[in-house]
Amino acid sequence: MTTVTLNNGYQMPQIGLGCWKIDKSICADQIYEAIKVGYRLFDGAMDYGNEKEVGQGINRALKDGLVKREALFIVSKLWNNYHSPKNVEKAIAKVLQDLQLDYIDLFYIHFPIAQRFVPFEEKYPPTFYCGAGEDEFIFENVPIHVTWSAFEKLVDRGVVKSIGVSNFSGALIEDLLRGCSIKPQVVQIEHHCYLQQPRLIEYLKRVDIAITSYSSFGGESFLELEHPKAKSVGTLFKHPTILRIAKNHQVAPAKVLLRWITQRGICVIPKSNKKQRLLENLNVNDFDLTKNDFEDISKIDIGLRFNDPWAWNKIPTFL
Amino acid sequence: MTTVTLNNGYQMPQIGLGCWKIDKSICADQIYEAIKVGYRLFDGAMDYGNEKEVGQGINRALKDGLVKREALFIVSKLWNNYHSPKNVEKAIAKVLQDLQLDYIDLFYIHFPIAQRFVPFEEKYPPTFYCGAGEDEFIFENVPIHVTWSAFEKLVDRGVVKSIGVSNFSGALIEDLLRGCSIKPQVVQIEHHCYLQQPRLIEYLKRVDIAITSYSSFGGESFLELEHPKAKSVGTLFKHPTILRIAKNHQVAPAKVLLRWITQRGICVIPKSNKKQRLLENLNVNDFDLTKNDFEDISKIDIGLRFNDPWAWNKIPTFL
Repeated sequence: MTTVTLNNGYQMPQIGLGCWKIDKSICADQIYEAIKVGYRLFDGAMDYGNEKEVGQGINRALKDGLVKREALFIVSKLWNNYHSPKNVEKAIAKVLQDLQLDYIDLFYIHFPIAQRFVPFEEKYPPTFYCGAGEDEFIFENVPIHVTWSAFEKLVDRGVVKSIGVSNFSGALIEDLLRGCSIKPQVVQIEHHCYLQQPRLIEYLKRVDIAITSYSSFGGESFLELEHPKAKSVGTLFKHPTILRIAKNHQVAPAKVLLRWITQRGICVIPKSNKKQRLLENLNVNDFDLTKNDFEDISKIDIGLRFNDPWAWNKIPTFL
Repeated sequence: MTTVTLNNGYQMPQIGLGCWKIDKSICADQIYEAIKVGYRLFDGAMDYGNEKEVGQGINRALKDGLVKREALFIVSKLWNNYHSPKNVEKAIAKVLQDLQLDYIDLFYIHFPIAQRFVPFEEKYPPTFYCGAGEDEFIFENVPIHVTWSAFEKLVDRGVVKSIGVSNFSGALIEDLLRGCSIKPQVVQIEHHCYLQQPRLIEYLKRVDIAITSYSSFGGESFLELEHPKAKSVGTLFKHPTILRIAKNHQVAPAKVLLRWITQRGICVIPKSNKKQRLLENLNVNDFDLTKNDFEDISKIDIGLRFNDPWAWNKIPTFL
């Protein structure tokens, strides 16, 4: 299992399982199965609404002796409604309780967007709900640096080993670096052939922050959500450049899409419901793309962001 | 003279004179002449290296009774090396001393980039100099919110009437709004037909922050600097769409480029060395573009940023 060394010395598996949209009814079994076939990193989030089930799968595997806790790398993400320091504390307690673990390996700020607190008993996860009768986002005045200070305390307390940010722009990360005590270990971003973000990648490598790519296949996850942009562009699985490269190397197009990312030292967290696919995704590092392949793929970039908060709401929000 | 009402109640002239690259040898006379023909806003900066001369022109006009101080709107910008609170204090003292004024109307953070302090006597303005023998940027760990707090104190002290930020992305501005006591009155951005930034414009209007466009003509100011991108795209003065619209309205192309901005309530600060041009730039609001004109111009956008810190240095920096 290839790992990436984080700037605090911890090892993070390069390939993990994304837990977004894994249905609760099958989630615990999927996690258990994934551990069985070799997965060690599970990329979850409060917002995914399945952390209890993720925890059940993990704990069953631990109990059955499939793996030891220290070999696992469990990830969660703070949702928008819990940015204030006292709510960060509530949030990590909730995460640990749902997962039935006493620490997690990585906790991200999910988005650079602070919204009004919603009590767990009122709605959990709240998604974009900000209160009864509210149909617009209600922001909470908590700047990033305040949430980050609360994250640093979680590391001091030992309930979180590494901390990171997700969906942050370069400028926000740069500003965070100017004021933090603990710099982010990982930044998770949308990263695929249609949204390559070469400057952000170059920057993060330069400042020694590990990168996790989500939506590595492009708009696939968004097709299920009837996302208009995902429907308007062709799937990367059938893109002529990807097909040609896949044929040259005699591998599946999906493997090309993932290897394009892992070969540059970036982590991936593809999801699959199929055991065969789970195994395939885990074994993408057994071939190398050529320099020409990279050059050809760089030409596919169209700067197309599928997960774009600007389009979420009546009050558009920036990444 | 059209003015824009800022979110603190102050009036800001919509058209002003940009002082970047006005040569020291002619600067005082230019400012004096501009006041004579009707200019009231002067957009200067520590970095432009001509604030003493700008001040001489202003004070000569005040002394000659051409204008009263309260009718003027004097702008400066904090340079990168003075982001720490104690240096913000030193910087505003330097600006007021150079301008020979006891307050300015608007002070911007010039860039969201904090670099190591350079004493005035060592080099002023330091441009990108960070110390003898240093050929790379040396950053200083001052996050934006700390510099902004120092700016708020300048308003409390009355030495600055309004405060703003320049070259900030939407995400940085959003984060600033989550934590500030005084929200920015104005954001100054590169804004022209080749870099329209429609989301940033929409966002700033929504949050009631006035906008000033710089480089309103596109790459013109950068052509003199042998800027490769400016040389590679055609000048907007000869763009077929602009020429056609100019012909339809029987106005100069420059007037179309400025009116496209002012008609949307955005401020402009074009520079000119010629008296005739100074007058022309001041009188762009006497005609209106049509809805079709706006639609046609929106198609010219190519997201081309001329003033791009990414290209400045061996250590690229984000806006």
